[in-house]
Amino acid sequence: MTSSKTPARLRGVLAPVMTPFEADMDVDVAAYIQHCQWLLDKGASLAIFGTNSEAASISADERMDLTETLLDAGIPAHRLMPGTGSCSVVEAANLSRHAVNAGAAGVLMLPPFYFKGVSDEGLFAYYSQVIERVGDARLAVYLYHIPQVTQVPISLSLIERLLKRYPETIAGCKDSSGDWGNAEAMIKAFAADGFDVFPASESLLRRAVPLGAAGCISATVNVNPGGIHSLYTALTHPRSSEADLAQLHGKADRIRQIFQSVPMIPAMKYTVATLTGQASWAHVRPPLVSMGDQEGKALLEKLSAEDFQMPGHT
Amino acid sequence: MTSSKTPARLRGVLAPVMTPFEADMDVDVAAYIQHCQWLLDKGASLAIFGTNSEAASISADERMDLTETLLDAGIPAHRLMPGTGSCSVVEAANLSRHAVNAGAAGVLMLPPFYFKGVSDEGLFAYYSQVIERVGDARLAVYLYHIPQVTQVPISLSLIERLLKRYPETIAGCKDSSGDWGNAEAMIKAFAADGFDVFPASESLLRRAVPLGAAGCISATVNVNPGGIHSLYTALTHPRSSEADLAQLHGKADRIRQIFQSVPMIPAMKYTVATLTGQASWAHVRPPLVSMGDQEGKALLEKLSAEDFQMPGHT
Repeated sequence: MTSSKTPARLRGVLAPVMTPFEADMDVDVAAYIQHCQWLLDKGASLAIFGTNSEAASISADERMDLTETLLDAGIPAHRLMPGTGSCSVVEAANLSRHAVNAGAAGVLMLPPFYFKGVSDEGLFAYYSQVIERVGDARLAVYLYHIPQVTQVPISLSLIERLLKRYPETIAGCKDSSGDWGNAEAMIKAFAADGFDVFPASESLLRRAVPLGAAGCISATVNVNPGGIHSLYTALTHPRSSEADLAQLHGKADRIRQIFQSVPMIPAMKYTVATLTGQASWAHVRPPLVSMGDQEGKALLEKLSAEDFQMPGHT
Repeated sequence: MTSSKTPARLRGVLAPVMTPFEADMDVDVAAYIQHCQWLLDKGASLAIFGTNSEAASISADERMDLTETLLDAGIPAHRLMPGTGSCSVVEAANLSRHAVNAGAAGVLMLPPFYFKGVSDEGLFAYYSQVIERVGDARLAVYLYHIPQVTQVPISLSLIERLLKRYPETIAGCKDSSGDWGNAEAMIKAFAADGFDVFPASESLLRRAVPLGAAGCISATVNVNPGGIHSLYTALTHPRSSEADLAQLHGKADRIRQIFQSVPMIPAMKYTVATLTGQASWAHVRPPLVSMGDQEGKALLEKLSAEDFQMPGHT
């Protein structure tokens, strides 16, 4: 393997950064950079090309171009965790190599999700091939467990096997299952060995961080980075009071629940489009469908009742 | 739209052409061309980049390169129906444009399969965007219904809506659901309007062709093209006897059942590797796993009892 300095591990709060599209479906690069900068300013790191980024709807070439665009705009590479999973092991390796060469802190990697009922042996071979093809000691792989979408779970025994074979490269997991029992089992089994578990919701932070979770990678960091970062910071501060934690958790959780009660990606995009006045945020790529005004207005009213704002995001 | 001669419609028997891989996972181009030529010689056309091709495991760039390779080797473009579906509408449009410019008879297009629970409105927008982006009257789109894999079905109402909007471009459907009721409903609803339905199994040909199906696109055409082509030819010949049809159907169906009783792609690849002596056929890309020798030998014994051979395939 190429020997080079391994970037420091990312911890804390990460946003699966949403992607604004022009009416012709090209990425609105200016709005994208601005959103990334705003998230960083609020304390979040950037899991670009996640589910909420509609990464599946963005081609591999587009993803690599966008990474370069962010770096050219001065976004620091060590705050990036690009999604590099693909059904094709060749494409996943190409995307991961590109991310490593860009200096990204790590890569978030879906299992191949076309074939169903695949074996752990096949998934082990997939991740092994990506790691061997990249062949670079700087590579840090975060496994992406989101079985309700992929239908291909990342089992505890697969993690164990990968950690044993690639202890320096397998860095952690995003658990988007929403199943606390699973996140808890992952943390208890592997966190002490330096395996960084990120549940996919800030609503789980209060339970997860004291057990040893590394933070969260959550959709709603896109709209509430400051509130979620404050909660994480308080949880990792030894002298936070229970009352403060309860207040920070409650506030973040209520905002989360509002977005969770509707199709989340179109809802967050409608919200950002309305509050920033940037129309490109309202667009999604098919097969997703944008939120209509009637539903959007009802959503904004609920958010308004929580005194929801996005300060500093133009 | 660009005005140019629309290629003639493909009918009859198509193979979702398997892809041989070297030990390092590169495509064995010589074996691939040879297999395509053999299939053509046996009367089958070529649905390259289908499920059985492991197309999901092959990057978009590789797929376009392989198409060029086949054309350079003299494989006729008008016998090709490349799979061009992708989770990304941008990538699906790029692949489809490439196929049209290559002169392919049509393209077989999966719905975007990452997001689940998507609406027909979102799927309509996806196919519309691909068609509008390609913007070429030569484009013939075959919808690919394989809900047990994609979890995203192509409904009858989606077909109706697409046919109404793009009557010249929406050319047909491959129905891999295995649900005869669905195939029958598609044929009855749309075949008379020139919508070509291809069930995914030769075992359905006897029921489907008399109703108006266009043929079949079936995995096992990769190993039994001659037998399946003979059955199709007999079914479309007005003077075939019931006894002949029963014999041809029975023989093809028994071979199909043998492959259906085991993991089909590794099983077919094991068979071709063994019977041709070309080791690259035994390899699959992860997450699939190659068939082991014990299971493979049992399979070959069953095939041997049916006097199974692959004449002319070296």
